[in-house]
Amino acid sequence: MKLATYKDGSRDGQLVVVSRDLATAHYATGIATRLQQVLDDWNFLSPQLQDLTTTLNQGKARHAFPFDPAMCMAPLPRAYQWADGSAYLNHVELVRKARGAEMPESFLGDPLVYQGGSDDFLGPCDDVPVASVDWGIDFEAEIAVITGDVPMGATPSQALEGVRLLMLANDWTLRHLVPAELAKGFGFFQSKPATAFSPVAVTPDELGDAWKGGRVHLTLQSSWNGRKVGVVEAGPEMNFHFGQLIAHIVKTRHLRAGAIVGSGTVSNKDASHGYSCIAEKRALEMIEQGEAKTAFMQYGDTIRIEMKGRDGHSVFGAIEQTVVEPA
Amino acid sequence: MKLATYKDGSRDGQLVVVSRDLATAHYATGIATRLQQVLDDWNFLSPQLQDLTTTLNQGKARHAFPFDPAMCMAPLPRAYQWADGSAYLNHVELVRKARGAEMPESFLGDPLVYQGGSDDFLGPCDDVPVASVDWGIDFEAEIAVITGDVPMGATPSQALEGVRLLMLANDWTLRHLVPAELAKGFGFFQSKPATAFSPVAVTPDELGDAWKGGRVHLTLQSSWNGRKVGVVEAGPEMNFHFGQLIAHIVKTRHLRAGAIVGSGTVSNKDASHGYSCIAEKRALEMIEQGEAKTAFMQYGDTIRIEMKGRDGHSVFGAIEQTVVEPA
Repeated sequence: MKLATYKDGSRDGQLVVVSRDLATAHYATGIATRLQQVLDDWNFLSPQLQDLTTTLNQGKARHAFPFDPAMCMAPLPRAYQWADGSAYLNHVELVRKARGAEMPESFLGDPLVYQGGSDDFLGPCDDVPVASVDWGIDFEAEIAVITGDVPMGATPSQALEGVRLLMLANDWTLRHLVPAELAKGFGFFQSKPATAFSPVAVTPDELGDAWKGGRVHLTLQSSWNGRKVGVVEAGPEMNFHFGQLIAHIVKTRHLRAGAIVGSGTVSNKDASHGYSCIAEKRALEMIEQGEAKTAFMQYGDTIRIEMKGRDGHSVFGAIEQTVVEPA
Repeated sequence: MKLATYKDGSRDGQLVVVSRDLATAHYATGIATRLQQVLDDWNFLSPQLQDLTTTLNQGKARHAFPFDPAMCMAPLPRAYQWADGSAYLNHVELVRKARGAEMPESFLGDPLVYQGGSDDFLGPCDDVPVASVDWGIDFEAEIAVITGDVPMGATPSQALEGVRLLMLANDWTLRHLVPAELAKGFGFFQSKPATAFSPVAVTPDELGDAWKGGRVHLTLQSSWNGRKVGVVEAGPEMNFHFGQLIAHIVKTRHLRAGAIVGSGTVSNKDASHGYSCIAEKRALEMIEQGEAKTAFMQYGDTIRIEMKGRDGHSVFGAIEQTVVEPA
């Protein structure tokens, strides 16, 4: 089942179910108006949405309409929790190496997770307002899951059972604000503006065999200004699977329904796969040529992030955003 | 006006208005069932709650009942944003000094703010389950505000206008998990379990003259196992007022209605005022005696946090919690 949230002028939008091929959609009116409602009461509401989805996929839904990703807010336009991991250690290693720092051995067993802001997400096609291009504007293409309730102390395999939906994320980062901010010791804040998510969130069964061991074994594609810069395998090099990331999060507290957990920038050791964020490209240049040559994003720059299933069709729809000066 | 959220078995509880003296309460049914609803539509709903409050304060509300803080969830049982500052630099300086580190000059102009988890708050009288007493269990007595929408780029004085409600917070911290976590560079996560809030959240006018320049000029009292350990002035030594903290937060993103912003541990230079967290007491011992002698909290330990108005009455009701082993 694929779910999206249509813009209607309200803070939380209107829940729609979307057909498997992303061609048509149908309002979930009568079942639920908002996605958070469904997550709060998953066992009761999700089978009803599944029934509607089946009817829609069969072309028999009465009030189906063409699905338009530009009408979408983030599947959860605001959430009670956004915790983003950094599960692809190649990314961590690369970025550190470029600044002459080793990755600590402990990172192999203890995942990096930062607490993100979750009150103001961007829709998949929303412009990205940034007050200054001097801040080092960068995209980060990621996979994210939305969970149900996961109790404190859950093991990785228990935690994995809490995964309700998957989506893509663009975890916008202002690179030049990062060093001073991390030096203060309290983690990211101003360096992480609003995150964007894919048009639809999908249940794990939509991925078939590609969802295995808490990882998505598909290719994440990123195109910057129309040029494909990343064709990165999301499965094999994810050092911590989603169950492990969630278990890390619930060590000292509960995770509640509607929590979003991110994978961090999807990254491959083999550089021929390209990159899912500009920082990696610059890190490689630094290591190989002594200086970073690729500039960060400018006003008017576009980024497209998408993942195709084994059948060649887009699973989540595309994130397609433009960096703009604030109005 | 004073607002609270009564436990009813649901995730968001039931909104009640509470009398000025915290003696009686009245369900807000017919106006709004949840506090987030009110924050989403403040200009329309808050005058109606104000009318009900006036009737309640006059003793004329028909279905008033005795107010019981033990029935309360956090005013917002879950929120879309919890950003906690560290606005009392004496606290920062002290804790750093104890470990032989200077406070950087830049901290005087650039506030520390960390992103907290907001999907699972504790009510004012809820037990605090912690899996191990070896984690260094500590309370942190703070003031927090709940905001309306504050746009990206707002100035401190504009940001201050976004303050809708004030409350107290107990920002539980697992001290022994902090050093390793901060060394990873991504900020707090496991070291910050669920935060608790006071029984009621109040509009700024309830504070009268004590709310001035974005600061609360009243005394925050903390009692640990029944012994008063802190009688700390919250006003004069708050280096960044709430407008400045919020302006810091909105440098690169919008803040949305229902966001909670904390002051950080309330702290005074004059140690005779005591402390609002054990870490400060231990820091002083370290500086003066070469070693920390006061142990952190044990199972069964209690903490009571309260603030009295100039009339001697409790403004927010008391946070009264017990540390327990998880069930």
